[in-house]
Amino acid sequence: MSVSVFAAATVANVACGFDALGFAIHEPGDEVIVRKSAQSGLRIVAITGDEGRLPLSVTKNTAGVSAQALLDETGYTGGIEMEIHKKMPLGSGLGSSSASSVAAVVAVNELIGSPFTRAELLRFATEGERAACGVPHADNVGPSLLGGFVLIRSYNPLEVVQLPVPDELWCSVIHPHVEILTEDARNVLRRRIRLEDAVVQWSNLGGLIAGLYQGDYQLIGRSLSDIIFEPTRSLLIPGFDMMKQAAMQAGALGCSISGSGPSVFALCRGEEIARAAADAMQHALTKAGLGSETYVSAINRQGPVIRNL
Amino acid sequence: MSVSVFAAATVANVACGFDALGFAIHEPGDEVIVRKSAQSGLRIVAITGDEGRLPLSVTKNTAGVSAQALLDETGYTGGIEMEIHKKMPLGSGLGSSSASSVAAVVAVNELIGSPFTRAELLRFATEGERAACGVPHADNVGPSLLGGFVLIRSYNPLEVVQLPVPDELWCSVIHPHVEILTEDARNVLRRRIRLEDAVVQWSNLGGLIAGLYQGDYQLIGRSLSDIIFEPTRSLLIPGFDMMKQAAMQAGALGCSISGSGPSVFALCRGEEIARAAADAMQHALTKAGLGSETYVSAINRQGPVIRNL
Repeated sequence: MSVSVFAAATVANVACGFDALGFAIHEPGDEVIVRKSAQSGLRIVAITGDEGRLPLSVTKNTAGVSAQALLDETGYTGGIEMEIHKKMPLGSGLGSSSASSVAAVVAVNELIGSPFTRAELLRFATEGERAACGVPHADNVGPSLLGGFVLIRSYNPLEVVQLPVPDELWCSVIHPHVEILTEDARNVLRRRIRLEDAVVQWSNLGGLIAGLYQGDYQLIGRSLSDIIFEPTRSLLIPGFDMMKQAAMQAGALGCSISGSGPSVFALCRGEEIARAAADAMQHALTKAGLGSETYVSAINRQGPVIRNL
Repeated sequence: MSVSVFAAATVANVACGFDALGFAIHEPGDEVIVRKSAQSGLRIVAITGDEGRLPLSVTKNTAGVSAQALLDETGYTGGIEMEIHKKMPLGSGLGSSSASSVAAVVAVNELIGSPFTRAELLRFATEGERAACGVPHADNVGPSLLGGFVLIRSYNPLEVVQLPVPDELWCSVIHPHVEILTEDARNVLRRRIRLEDAVVQWSNLGGLIAGLYQGDYQLIGRSLSDIIFEPTRSLLIPGFDMMKQAAMQAGALGCSISGSGPSVFALCRGEEIARAAADAMQHALTKAGLGSETYVSAINRQGPVIRNL
């Protein structure tokens, strides 16, 4: 018996919710396949789609770390083989490592008889983020695991809040073909911020959350503003201003950097505008001579997809 | 014909929502009475309950400034006499000047035939705050005018979002008999804050707003945390730690400083716990030899009360 799990990409920060908010989209994402094996312990036997960049060592691979954290808590000692099929770009700002970690813990949990609920898996997947970034971020892992919009209310102890998703909310994502290391993107951040900027930022986060509960698309749009991080982080993304302008002209509610970039997301009301915004962003980037791919999807409310093979 | 309006006290900041969030309680508050007079222009003819501290000059009194801003926009030039009856302590951190401004604009609007909606009155009442503090704060004026919990999503342009109020949410307020000038309370604030603290603060604000929408009292309680301002501002409030501990032991969901203090509020589930929390806070302060008064009320959803006399 083997289990395949597909876990989706996620957009973290969402303009005004730095380190606090994220949502899941339907594609791209990663697939993890696990099966029981005669050889004891967890082993990663194959990784595809990573151009050889990810380690097979369980203790060095984020998906491996997450799955092992789960197994350690159960005391399960049987053999498990894991394949990781990356179906999304690394270092894209779309929660690539999180998607693998989430797929891994959901798959292993299913394989060994589901000792944990979906919500309980969060802390194991977060361990993978700690391995990847040194910090147990949950704003990609949370939405990839639970679907929809997820607020990380607290890191210590870890507590997430699932927020409602208005029916017509769609997302356009563009991944420009440049790579930004999360570490570099964090290095351009200031360690202290102006109080008045913080007030603007948290007022917008409050407005965004209220907009999600009320299904008020215009309020969502007005709240999608990041005056603290976007001004500096966007300097690392060639063509950012052009892409944003193009998305807004196409009718997007708002547009900002996905995670630490270089991907850029736009939230839109309805599929038609979302497709137009994606096309407009890509057109703007092409004119500047840069390659990219785009993804258009409704907000992903279902979370990981499990198939028993 | 004369019109009397009672506008209620408010709790601003609400722990994690500095300059962004406030809610109204039922008492205390201020009453403003207006009537038409033969002498043209707006005149403040009487102020009671202020121990002679507030100016009769329309251009120097926050209620006068607010009402005059309204009249200027209508072009109304008839005579209006205004009485201001302060029924709450000045400098208490309960939005005293806001209550007067709100009562004044609602009363004058009613007197001259209601040219403006309740929501449209917000910017006139905010002008009074600009006169009082130099900054057009709206986190007291907003909830006093509109009732309930109000988020100031944006100051420029001014935009407020009314948030839902769970049915059993009650508030205990204690006003210790010490005075803190808003200016002093702002002077202890740092102009820059740590990014990691800001993330904690805005995650809590997000949690509080989600808790209000979901009617999740425990989430509201966990989110009522202020790690940025309370640690320094509470130093100006004798007995703060004892009061907070007493309120929490009495079962309050959370407890923090009201506005810039010295009043302290606790949010509670139900009247019984709210009364117990108020008693416990007062008892703690009495033991420390300090006088105080307490107010216990459900969250005030109705806003100002108009009586045509």
